[in-house]
Amino acid sequence: MLRDTITWDRETGTVEFIDQTLLPGECRVVRCENIERLAQAIRRLEIRGAPALGVAGAFGVALAVHRSTVQDLSALQQEASRAAALLTQTRPTAVNLAWGIDRVLSCIMASSSPEQARETAVREAIAIAAEDVDLCKKIGEHGAALLPDTCTVLTHCNAGALACVRWGTALGVIRSAVASGKQVSVIACETRPLFQGSRLTAWELAQEGIDVRVIPDSAAAHLMRRGRIDAAVVGADRVTRDAVFNKIGTYMHAVCARHHGIPFYVAAPYSTIDAVSSEEDVVIELRAREELAWCGDRQLLPDGVEAGNYAFDATPLELVSAVITERGVFHPPLALENMRGIRRTI
Amino acid sequence: MLRDTITWDRETGTVEFIDQTLLPGECRVVRCENIERLAQAIRRLEIRGAPALGVAGAFGVALAVHRSTVQDLSALQQEASRAAALLTQTRPTAVNLAWGIDRVLSCIMASSSPEQARETAVREAIAIAAEDVDLCKKIGEHGAALLPDTCTVLTHCNAGALACVRWGTALGVIRSAVASGKQVSVIACETRPLFQGSRLTAWELAQEGIDVRVIPDSAAAHLMRRGRIDAAVVGADRVTRDAVFNKIGTYMHAVCARHHGIPFYVAAPYSTIDAVSSEEDVVIELRAREELAWCGDRQLLPDGVEAGNYAFDATPLELVSAVITERGVFHPPLALENMRGIRRTI
Repeated sequence: MLRDTITWDRETGTVEFIDQTLLPGECRVVRCENIERLAQAIRRLEIRGAPALGVAGAFGVALAVHRSTVQDLSALQQEASRAAALLTQTRPTAVNLAWGIDRVLSCIMASSSPEQARETAVREAIAIAAEDVDLCKKIGEHGAALLPDTCTVLTHCNAGALACVRWGTALGVIRSAVASGKQVSVIACETRPLFQGSRLTAWELAQEGIDVRVIPDSAAAHLMRRGRIDAAVVGADRVTRDAVFNKIGTYMHAVCARHHGIPFYVAAPYSTIDAVSSEEDVVIELRAREELAWCGDRQLLPDGVEAGNYAFDATPLELVSAVITERGVFHPPLALENMRGIRRTI
Repeated sequence: MLRDTITWDRETGTVEFIDQTLLPGECRVVRCENIERLAQAIRRLEIRGAPALGVAGAFGVALAVHRSTVQDLSALQQEASRAAALLTQTRPTAVNLAWGIDRVLSCIMASSSPEQARETAVREAIAIAAEDVDLCKKIGEHGAALLPDTCTVLTHCNAGALACVRWGTALGVIRSAVASGKQVSVIACETRPLFQGSRLTAWELAQEGIDVRVIPDSAAAHLMRRGRIDAAVVGADRVTRDAVFNKIGTYMHAVCARHHGIPFYVAAPYSTIDAVSSEEDVVIELRAREELAWCGDRQLLPDGVEAGNYAFDATPLELVSAVITERGVFHPPLALENMRGIRRTI
């Protein structure tokens, strides 16, 4: 059993997380006592994955007020707002991060004393983490029903336990299918430039004895053509009314899956659905040239040559076979009016 | 001006080549005095690219007889055959390697004295290298005519000067277009796992001041969707009667180009066309797990997890807009009967 990706340590009032940049070589747990360190961890992708970012954002705001020595409520609320703003800016594309931050911030703003603010902030953040575990299990159950009894599933990046608190979304579907007795083999795309597929997905599945093999991102279509892929399951950083935003490469897999008649599933918490935005409203994060120019001690890109390091891409909903959430499976047409039960706006 | 990728040094009777594994950090020229070293260079991808492999194979057989001290013709011919067999086994997919080897071996077999065998072998090998330069220029001219006056061209792997002797096939098309005054920007896919796109294509284009930007292989479809790609041009390791074999990832680009209505061109010497084989006859080389498990000093894959390291994939001719050769441009339907002028069999 893997340890949880991110947790609140009640004894010390600190946040503990697995530093994912060190995997698969080392599984180091970092204790974090201030939000500057947490913001750095998010920016450096020590913590990554949309659901885990939601929890990290929530813990971050809770940490800010819990560790603050300010005695005045309004000053404490201002401090919480500043913490929220700092954390929100760390990653622009994932909707969950802002969502987790806002939930805890709202509790603080509704409090009538500093003590209440501190207490409810921590309680709400812990509740968000617990909900995440619960909803991943539900996503897993809903999604597992979609997979054949024996199948090979393609996945991209890491939408696993390491992207959440536990169990995972896309890998939650695979875990639940395996737990229900299905024979599932996984093809994990390595996911350039940061190799979340090989470093994280392969690592967490291998830890639990789930059959996994890693390929370059560019080999997925080749295996689809050879009939080796029965379904694709990926996570999502944001689902707008017209598109799924997820790790760069997701769109290419969706186009190729459609070309080969292979079902393409998106597994994500309901909070990932941003029903008021369209594709054109979303900023796609451009990350540093460095990530493509070097790998370890090895220079890959000549000096002076530019790189296009898009962190995400947009897959139009027409290419998605179903969106799997904890509230159930949404089938096409995946238009806003069919996403029943949508309550929140941002 | 780049130096030639592989040359015969008349003074010393040795082969000189650029060690491509050291680029882009260092451009080191290796002098090679025996075929064991040349075979190693091919296996280690110090020399790579279908046309360059044809020339390397030819130089290799010439080297074997040129450096041999055997006085008897039949013993020398046997030595040449052993050299040919050793070199042929180094890479199973590229048709050019065996073709270059066979051309020189035939000259040796037709010789009536050891002196004649040595002389004609070297002469034939040098002629093959010169022909390669000439045909790349012709491929370039034919292909350049297909590109708009101002355009952004996607390419994958390295089908450039470094894959040939000089000028290149896919990059030859781009060089010729630039030389004719067209405004061409290049998007080079980095090409996992060995990064020929970032290490070689970006390097050789930047050396000549041609505009180039590098992306992860998985970002090509994203840029196609955003309307940033006007055409794709790739090389080929083998063109059978039904498919183009080229670097893993080519097929995915072809599927995505078709999805977006973007022309997808294959540029290759006519000798790459293997008219008697079908896709199912061709063995796709599986390379070492190591190439996906490590990058420089960095571990990417957990111990014990398997990797699928396919060196090539097959793109059905239906997805190819045209095959550009030195004999002209073949348009669809790209069936065998339409590939006029096919003379050779293997």
